[in-house]
Amino acid sequence: MSATRANLADPKLDLVLERVVDVPAELVWLAWTSPEHLKKWFTPAPWKTVDCELDLRPGGQFRTVMQSPEGQQFPTVGCYLEIVPKRKLVWTSALEPGYRPAKRTAVEGLECSELLFTAVITLEPHGKGTKYTATALHRNEADAKKHLELGFHEGWGKALDQLVELAKTM
Amino acid sequence: MSATRANLADPKLDLVLERVVDVPAELVWLAWTSPEHLKKWFTPAPWKTVDCELDLRPGGQFRTVMQSPEGQQFPTVGCYLEIVPKRKLVWTSALEPGYRPAKRTAVEGLECSELLFTAVITLEPHGKGTKYTATALHRNEADAKKHLELGFHEGWGKALDQLVELAKTM
Repeated sequence: MSATRANLADPKLDLVLERVVDVPAELVWLAWTSPEHLKKWFTPAPWKTVDCELDLRPGGQFRTVMQSPEGQQFPTVGCYLEIVPKRKLVWTSALEPGYRPAKRTAVEGLECSELLFTAVITLEPHGKGTKYTATALHRNEADAKKHLELGFHEGWGKALDQLVELAKTM
Repeated sequence: MSATRANLADPKLDLVLERVVDVPAELVWLAWTSPEHLKKWFTPAPWKTVDCELDLRPGGQFRTVMQSPEGQQFPTVGCYLEIVPKRKLVWTSALEPGYRPAKRTAVEGLECSELLFTAVITLEPHGKGTKYTATALHRNEADAKKHLELGFHEGWGKALDQLVELAKTM
């Protein structure tokens, strides 16, 4: 399933990670939607995801707690928007669960806590593997640049490596 | 259909207009979802809604252009989130169409342009009429207060009067 008209990336505003991975879409989906699995790959090492809650429905909570190598914890919360099993997952940090506009108060010490974006993950079967596309939609060029400089490609890429490695053991 | 857990109003953060109206839910739904009808009731007179685009699907555009008695026009755009025909309609000003986080640049002269809220309209059949509930979800108490002072109850109430009047001619 390719990006629909509603989620077209704008090259000035958005960041896209696209890669063909050699695990089936069903396992990629499971890694994204099962809390036990997500904790194992979601945050590039040496950071960890120490907790998460996935209320997988439009308006439901997508909450994770990342932990730095020093042990400091950073909870983040988002809201799921669209769920197409095994094909598409959309959530945003601009809304809290229940669709309430997000407070966007800064979390001390975490620069990206103020970064608003909507994430669109699409999975397309590709031979025995999957074409994986992760798009981050931003409100303006400044936010896109900030997300790029925070290491979007490295971070999301390394997390995807971890996901693929995990999927091969599933 | 009453508010789901995801859309529960918080008395400190949210504003609610609840009223039983003597027109069936089908007509209230039609008034909310047909552009020709919406233009006739959506903005309390002497203001007018001079244009609108309703792309009625999750992620779709909810765009209206209001016009002041002096002829100044104020376009606003939101994003539909949840659509349950004849029962529930949810959209937000915190996202643009396609779920992109909203820019929230001020529109000159329109105080409420910066007001972020998610609107949840629920319709429940009630005898031959409808129990109509409009809830505005805000990110903080300041926004809720601002929306209240801008005349939430008067504005949404008068618009509902106009909707009911229209529905009786449909």
